[in-house]
Amino acid sequence: MPSFKVTVTVRLKQGVLDPQGKAIEGALTSLDFSGVKGVRQGKVFDMVLEAKDAKEAEKAALKMADKLLANTVVEDFQVEFA
Amino acid sequence: MPSFKVTVTVRLKQGVLDPQGKAIEGALTSLDFSGVKGVRQGKVFDMVLEAKDAKEAEKAALKMADKLLANTVVEDFQVEFA
Repeated sequence: MPSFKVTVTVRLKQGVLDPQGKAIEGALTSLDFSGVKGVRQGKVFDMVLEAKDAKEAEKAALKMADKLLANTVVEDFQVEFA
Repeated sequence: MPSFKVTVTVRLKQGVLDPQGKAIEGALTSLDFSGVKGVRQGKVFDMVLEAKDAKEAEKAALKMADKLLANTVVEDFQVEFA
């Protein structure tokens, strides 16, 4: 079976507070970086998936993201081929 | 000053062990996802930067990644405009 490099990116939904991002913003500002107007942190998962074709690989990745990689109450995800 | 949406993606360098990725791979397999041949986890930072132009914003983002966002001993980073 062919294998596909799939990247799942998980980000907090708009409106969900991100204290970690806020902390990074503060740290950047205190390191004298000016002009930082908002930081939000997310996660990225680089996976190698064996599947019949790209469509199947994408379907599997979406299911994985929905079931395990993202907390869909507060997070959104997107799937891309690398 | 115009503001730019910049995304910094931080990934472990090739060859650096990723126990978290391994754990996710194991979890996916035990959730009956077949065909998972490797998972590596990274971080993504979505930032809004005020800068004179896109070039300055990119330069600032690269510096932030190098100084704070990534541990360049074990991690690589890349900067993109969203």
